[in-house]
Amino acid sequence: MDEHLHTPVTPFPISPKSSVSELVTKMAGTSFQARNLAQGAEIWSQMLKDEVTIFFGLAGAMIPAGMRRVMVYLIENRLIDCLVATGANLFHDLHESLGRFHYQGNPRADDRELCKLGIDRIRDVYMSDDEFVEGEGYIAEFSSSLDQDRPYTTREYLFLLGKKLCAEGKAEGILTSAARANIPIYCPAIGDSALGIGMAGGRVKKQNKLLFDIVQDVIEITQIAVSAPATGVIYVGGGTPKNFIQQAEVTSYIFGKELEGHKYAVQITTDSPQWGGLSGCTFEEGKSWGKEAPSARMVTINSDATIALPIIVSALAETATKRRNLPTFVLDRELKVEN
Amino acid sequence: MDEHLHTPVTPFPISPKSSVSELVTKMAGTSFQARNLAQGAEIWSQMLKDEVTIFFGLAGAMIPAGMRRVMVYLIENRLIDCLVATGANLFHDLHESLGRFHYQGNPRADDRELCKLGIDRIRDVYMSDDEFVEGEGYIAEFSSSLDQDRPYTTREYLFLLGKKLCAEGKAEGILTSAARANIPIYCPAIGDSALGIGMAGGRVKKQNKLLFDIVQDVIEITQIAVSAPATGVIYVGGGTPKNFIQQAEVTSYIFGKELEGHKYAVQITTDSPQWGGLSGCTFEEGKSWGKEAPSARMVTINSDATIALPIIVSALAETATKRRNLPTFVLDRELKVEN
Amino acid sequence: MDEHLHTPVTPFPISPKSSVSELVTKMAGTSFQARNLAQGAEIWSQMLKDEVTIFFGLAGAMIPAGMRRVMVYLIENRLIDCLVATGANLFHDLHESLGRFHYQGNPRADDRELCKLGIDRIRDVYMSDDEFVEGEGYIAEFSSSLDQDRPYTTREYLFLLGKKLCAEGKAEGILTSAARANIPIYCPAIGDSALGIGMAGGRVKKQNKLLFDIVQDVIEITQIAVSAPATGVIYVGGGTPKNFIQQAEVTSYIFGKELEGHKYAVQITTDSPQWGGLSGCTFEEGKSWGKEAPSARMVTINSDATIALPIIVSALAETATKRRNLPTFVLDRELKVEN
Amino acid sequence: MDEHLHTPVTPFPISPKSSVSELVTKMAGTSFQARNLAQGAEIWSQMLKDEVTIFFGLAGAMIPAGMRRVMVYLIENRLIDCLVATGANLFHDLHESLGRFHYQGNPRADDRELCKLGIDRIRDVYMSDDEFVEGEGYIAEFSSSLDQDRPYTTREYLFLLGKKLCAEGKAEGILTSAARANIPIYCPAIGDSALGIGMAGGRVKKQNKLLFDIVQDVIEITQIAVSAPATGVIYVGGGTPKNFIQQAEVTSYIFGKELEGHKYAVQITTDSPQWGGLSGCTFEEGKSWGKEAPSARMVTINSDATIALPIIVSALAETATKRRNLPTFVLDRELKVEN
Repeated sequence: MDEHLHTPVTPFPISPKSSVSELVTKMAGTSFQARNLAQGAEIWSQMLKDEVTIFFGLAGAMIPAGMRRVMVYLIENRLIDCLVATGANLFHDLHESLGRFHYQGNPRADDRELCKLGIDRIRDVYMSDDEFVEGEGYIAEFSSSLDQDRPYTTREYLFLLGKKLCAEGKAEGILTSAARANIPIYCPAIGDSALGIGMAGGRVKKQNKLLFDIVQDVIEITQIAVSAPATGVIYVGGGTPKNFIQQAEVTSYIFGKELEGHKYAVQITTDSPQWGGLSGCTFEEGKSWGKEAPSARMVTINSDATIALPIIVSALAETATKRRNLPTFVLDRELKVEN
Repeated sequence: MDEHLHTPVTPFPISPKSSVSELVTKMAGTSFQARNLAQGAEIWSQMLKDEVTIFFGLAGAMIPAGMRRVMVYLIENRLIDCLVATGANLFHDLHESLGRFHYQGNPRADDRELCKLGIDRIRDVYMSDDEFVEGEGYIAEFSSSLDQDRPYTTREYLFLLGKKLCAEGKAEGILTSAARANIPIYCPAIGDSALGIGMAGGRVKKQNKLLFDIVQDVIEITQIAVSAPATGVIYVGGGTPKNFIQQAEVTSYIFGKELEGHKYAVQITTDSPQWGGLSGCTFEEGKSWGKEAPSARMVTINSDATIALPIIVSALAETATKRRNLPTFVLDRELKVEN
Repeated sequence: MDEHLHTPVTPFPISPKSSVSELVTKMAGTSFQARNLAQGAEIWSQMLKDEVTIFFGLAGAMIPAGMRRVMVYLIENRLIDCLVATGANLFHDLHESLGRFHYQGNPRADDRELCKLGIDRIRDVYMSDDEFVEGEGYIAEFSSSLDQDRPYTTREYLFLLGKKLCAEGKAEGILTSAARANIPIYCPAIGDSALGIGMAGGRVKKQNKLLFDIVQDVIEITQIAVSAPATGVIYVGGGTPKNFIQQAEVTSYIFGKELEGHKYAVQITTDSPQWGGLSGCTFEEGKSWGKEAPSARMVTINSDATIALPIIVSALAETATKRRNLPTFVLDRELKVEN
Repeated sequence: MDEHLHTPVTPFPISPKSSVSELVTKMAGTSFQARNLAQGAEIWSQMLKDEVTIFFGLAGAMIPAGMRRVMVYLIENRLIDCLVATGANLFHDLHESLGRFHYQGNPRADDRELCKLGIDRIRDVYMSDDEFVEGEGYIAEFSSSLDQDRPYTTREYLFLLGKKLCAEGKAEGILTSAARANIPIYCPAIGDSALGIGMAGGRVKKQNKLLFDIVQDVIEITQIAVSAPATGVIYVGGGTPKNFIQQAEVTSYIFGKELEGHKYAVQITTDSPQWGGLSGCTFEEGKSWGKEAPSARMVTINSDATIALPIIVSALAETATKRRNLPTFVLDRELKVEN
C-alpha cells in the first residue's frame, strides 16, 4: 500500500505573480489533465536533452486559431526536427505570410449572411473569401514555376515554397522559418486543402501539370526515423499528421530494420479513445503495433491545443536548455543544395 | 464586411518569460478555447469591479485533483460570495483538513489489486479507504453534537462544521475559510456523498437523528439572489451546483419578483450541449428560461477545470483590484450570530 | 496468439427487414460502441434471469427527450426494481401526467425571443413556462396536503405523489406506474429542481413546512442493497443517481456487512473518464472502491441515451423472458401499507 | 407562441416487436440525438428520391469495426454515387477480401504482450501483424503490375485494384463492389496508410516507381460536383474524406461556375464544434463557405457510427424505393473503358 500512497497531490497554490513555467510546475502536483499537461512539458524537455529526432504532427485549424508564432518558435529554436501538417494549416500560414489576416469572429453568426458578404467562418474566426482565392492563385503561379517534368515530394514543394516566400521578403511563418532552418515539412494530403485547389486551378488553365511523389514522402520520413538514434513525437490533434508519423515506425521493416518504436510521445487532443479512431487512440494501443517503444515515456493531454500548446512552449522557452545533440538527417544534403 | 473583419487574430507570441496574466492576455488574441479562457478571466474581473453577488458552483472531483487551495484563495480574497458544491468535494476538503492526503496514482492500475489494498481510485488519484471511513466517523460524531430537535439547512450545517474545524486548529480548507469569511456554502445533495454515509452511520448507531431543511436552502439562495443588486455566476462542471444556482433566478417569482437573470456567467466544462443535459447546456439556452439576462456577458470554456481554473485565478491574483462593493447578505446576521 | 485471435468481427449484414432484437444481435458481432450496446442488452438480460435487485439511475433531460414511456415500460414489466432519478426528470414526468406536453424545438432558436414568449428551451425541446409554474403550484398544494409534523423520505413523498396522480386518473407516467408497482423512487437532490421550487413557493406562502429525511434515504437504499441476494445497476447518465446507487455498496459497512459490489453494471453515458468526474468514470475504477464486484459483468456504452436506451429496451421487450426471481424489499411492507 | 409549440415530443413507445424502420420512425418523435438520427435517415431518403449525386465520406476505423458489409450494401444498391475514404479503411477492406479477419479484442489488454505476439490492436479489435505485412506485399505487387510510365489518380488505382480482386474471385468488399458498380473511390491521403507502406516497400525493392496524380483527383471530384444537377453528402467521421468532398463545392470556381453548395448534408460524428476543427464543424459553418446551400436540408448526428450507420441503412433497406434518377458521371466512360 505504501508503494502506492507515496506522492501526495499538492493543491495548486495561488501566488501574487508566477511565470508560466512556475504554473506548469504547480500543475505537476495536481491531477487529471493539469498533471498530464505538466508531464507533457517535462517529457518534451527530456527529448531536448536526449539524442532524439523530434517529429511534430499538426492538425486542426491551428493557424487560424493563432498558433502560427508558436510554430515558428518551435522551428527557429529547433524544439522540433520534422513537421507533418495538414494542407489547410500550411495554406493559412501562407495566407498570413502574404500579409493577410484571420479575424476574430462570432461562432453564432448568421452564416448565410456571412456567405453573402464573402466571409468564411472557422468556429470563431473569419476570413475574406476573396483573399483566399488570391492565395490559391499564388499557389497556382508558384506551381507553374516549378519543373513540370519531374515529380516533387511534398517536402521539396513546401521547402521551395518557403524559399520563394523568403526571397520575396514575406512575413515570417512556418514555411519560411522551416526553409531557413532546413526543417523538412511533409503534407500527406496536400491535394485536400486550398493548396490542392490552387494547383487544380492552375492545371485547368494549363499552367502546370505538377505531380507529387507521395510514395517518396513515405520512404523519406521512414528514412529519417531509421537513421535517428531515437525518435520522439508530439501531436497536436490527430488526422493524417499523427498517422503519418506513427506509421514511420512500422514502415521501417522495408529497410530490413525493426524499430524500437518512438521513445517519447506527447499528444494534445480533444478526441477520446472510445470511438476507436486513430486520432483519439492511446499510445498504449500504439505499443501493440510497435509505434511506441515498450518503455516509452508518453502522455496524452486532453485539452484544446490553443490552451495547452502555448503553455507548454512558453514553459520550455523559459526553462529549456539549448539542445546539444541536434539530429542530422539523410535529407540534409538535398535540402541544403536547394538552399 | 468591414464590421465583421475588424479585429485580427493575433498569433500567440512566445516570450523568454511571461507571467500567467500575460499568458491570458496573449490568449485573448487567439481563438477557440484559449480565447474563451481569456474572456472568462475578463468577465470575472468585470464582476469584481461591478456591484454584483458572485455565485460559484463546484462539481467534479476538484479537491482530489488539487484545487483546494485555489478555492481557499477565492474565499479568503472574496472573489466569490456564495459557494454551491457537491458533497464529495466538501468531504474531500474535510479529509485534507483532518491532515490526510490524496495521492498521485495511475489511471491504468489494477483496480482489483487496489481494492484488496484498501485504496480508492479517482482517475489518477488514490486515497486510503480506512482514512475515508475515519472521516465518515468524524461526520457522524459532529452530526450527533448538533441540536437534534430542529432541522438544519445545509448552509448552517456546513458553517458549523467549518467552525468546529477552525476551533480544532485544523488545516485551512474550504469549510474553514468559508466559516471565517462568512461565505455561505450550500450542498443540494448532501446525502449523496461520504457526508451522507457518515450521517447514516451515526443514525444507525442511534447517535443522531439529524434532519436537513432542504426547502429552506432553496428559499435562502433565492433570497440572496433577490436581494442582490445584480448576480454573476461561475461554474466548474455542471451537476447540482450549476442547476441550483441557475434555478435561483427562476425561483424569484415566489417572492413576487421577476429577476433579470444573471448579469455575468462563466462556465468551465468538459460537457457539450448536443447531449441536452443541464450540465453541458449553453448560457444561450439559459436565457430562454430567464436564468441569464438578455444582455448578460457570458462565456463557456471547454476545458478540464484543473487547467483553466488555476490559470484564471492566478491571472486575477496578479491583476485584479480589491472589490469595493462587497454584497451584504440577508443571511449575514445569522451567520455572524453563530460565529 | 490463437487465444487472442479467436472470434472474428462479423461485418454487420443489411437485411431487407430486421427486428430491433436482430439489430442488436448483429451489433454484437461488430466493434466499438455498437458491440458495447449489444453487451449492455445481454448483461441486462442476464440480470433478469439471475436473482438480483436491479437499480436504475436516471439523469439528463430524458423525459423532455421522449423517454417517459420507456421508463414506464421498465417499471410496469419490472425490468428494474428501484429507481433513482433527478428531480427534473420527475417534474417533467409530472408535467406530462398533468396532460401537458414537451414540444419539438430548434436548438439554434433566438433564446431572447423565446424568453419573451414564455418558452423554456432544453436543447431541441420547448415547454411553456406558464405550465411549468402551474406544475410547481401543483407540487406546492400536494406538499401542503401532507403531514407537516413528521419528515418524509423522498421515496415516501414520491410514492404518495404517484398515488395522488393515480387517484386523480392522470396520464400514466413514471410516478404513477412506480406507485402502482411498488417500485421505490429516490431523488437525492429533490430540492434542486422544479419540485424544490414548488415546495419553496408553498413554504413562502406558509402552506407547508415540509421536511425531508435525506439521511433515511441513504439508509434505505443501503438496506435494499444489503438485503438483496445480489445487485445490478443500470445508469443513464451520471450525476446524483449514479453516485447514490454506487455509494449504496460502500455504505453497507454501517450495517456491519461488507458487500461484494454490484454483480452487473451497465452505463450509457456521453461523458468520458479522462475528466476524472464520477459521471464519466469507469466501472473498473468502481472496483477499487468495492462498488463493483471483482468479477462483475459490466459495460460502458458511450452513446446518447435517447438512441441506446430505446434500442436496448425494445430488444429486451422482444426477447426477454419474464423474471422468476423478483426481489422482495425490506420496504415492501411500508410501501404497501400506504398503498 | 403557438407557432413554436406545435409538435409535441412523442414519448418513444416500446412494442413487443418492431422493425428497425419502425424504430427510426419512433425516434423521430423524440429529441436530442435520436431525433437527429431519424432526420438523417429521412434526409438520405429524400436524396434518393431527388435528382442528386450522393458523395459519401468514410473516416474512422470503420472496416475493422464491422461496417464493411454496410458499405457494400450502399454501393451495390446505389445508395451512394461516389466514395471518398481513408487509405486505412480501404486497406482493411482488402485485408478481408484476401480472406483474413479482424478479431474481437479487449480494449484493456496488455499492449506490450500483444506486440510480442504480433497482434495489432484498434480499440477492441485485433489483427495479425504478419497478415498485415502480407497485405502490404499484395499492394507492392499490384503496384508493380501497373504502367510505371504514367501517373494514376487514386480513383484509377483503386478501380484497378478492385478489378483485380474481382478477377481473382476474392470475397466481396468495398473495392470489388465499387469496381463492379462503377462507383468512383477517391483516397486523398493514399500514402498515409498501409497502402502507402506497401507501395513504399515495393519502391525500395525497385519493383515500382508508381506516381499518383493527386491534383487530378481534386479536379475530377469537382467535375463530378459541377456536372451534377444537385449534390448531397453523407459523412461518417471527418478527416480528409469530409474535407475533400466539402472542398469540391468551393473548387467549382476554377471551372467558372459558382455552385449552390450541397443540397443535402448528413454527418455522423463523435467530434464537437467547439474545438474548431473541420472534422467536428457544423454544416452551418459550411454555409459561410458556400459548401452547403443556403436552404440545404442538413443534420448532424452525434453518435458512434457503428451504432447510427447500421440503423439508418437498415431502415433505408426496409423502406426506400429504388432510385429513378441515377446520376451519370463525366467519368463514367473512362471507368467503363477499363472495365
